[in-house]
Amino acid sequence: MNISHIEHIGIAVKDLQESIVYWEKVFGLKCYAIEEVKEQRVKTAFFMIGQTKIELLESTDPEGPIGKFIEKKGEGVHHLAFAVKGIEEALAETEANGIQLIDKTPRKGAEQMDIAFLHPKSTFGVLTELCENKNLK
Amino acid sequence: MNISHIEHIGIAVKDLQESIVYWEKVFGLKCYAIEEVKEQRVKTAFFMIGQTKIELLESTDPEGPIGKFIEKKGEGVHHLAFAVKGIEEALAETEANGIQLIDKTPRKGAEQMDIAFLHPKSTFGVLTELCENKNLK
Repeated sequence: MNISHIEHIGIAVKDLQESIVYWEKVFGLKCYAIEEVKEQRVKTAFFMIGQTKIELLESTDPEGPIGKFIEKKGEGVHHLAFAVKGIEEALAETEANGIQLIDKTPRKGAEQMDIAFLHPKSTFGVLTELCENKNLK
Repeated sequence: MNISHIEHIGIAVKDLQESIVYWEKVFGLKCYAIEEVKEQRVKTAFFMIGQTKIELLESTDPEGPIGKFIEKKGEGVHHLAFAVKGIEEALAETEANGIQLIDKTPRKGAEQMDIAFLHPKSTFGVLTELCENKNLK
């Protein structure tokens, strides 16, 4: 697999606005985008630290994946996303290595990225996303 | 605060050797160092992804911080570490912003870094480490 960098770290939060204030005030970062991803039932806010984005995730539905995560585990890191080149090949290779895929084919995520998740049962507890920005090609 | 990049992501694992095999085989990364940090009662293994290290953490003591974390939450992301310039000033500024510090002054972590943790109760559930490699100056 050809991973170039950690594209983003997804963090589940209860209140997006309060969390944005915290990240801006304490770390001196600037929220550069807020976006709703209806399919995932979340509102997201983005910050940049070096090569990597911090993606805050607030659930718009208690029954959505972030709502359920917070109910079970509380606020905190939800997933890690690795930027790959050739996401389809990377998924095929991952599955061939015995890793359970949540998404067998890529779908659209925030920022028009192609994304796919690996199941945390196969990844030692780390919900892992592979993503590729095909607009960069 | 002057954050340059995400220095590392700490991941709690039950079995360091099994996890190393996973990160090497599935993601094609190379474990470049294994180090025991006795004060923290952990064995650590490091990988590099772009600017950021993955730090796998296996507890050497069920009563140590990683042992307790796994008992409570299972394997997974344990903390995020931000590389800062001027860690003492960064800690003072953080405390002045009302954030609870676990370490009021920096101590030595893996790789001879100066490190200090912020309390997850103050940081929306993300155990956060500030760190500085003073050897780079």
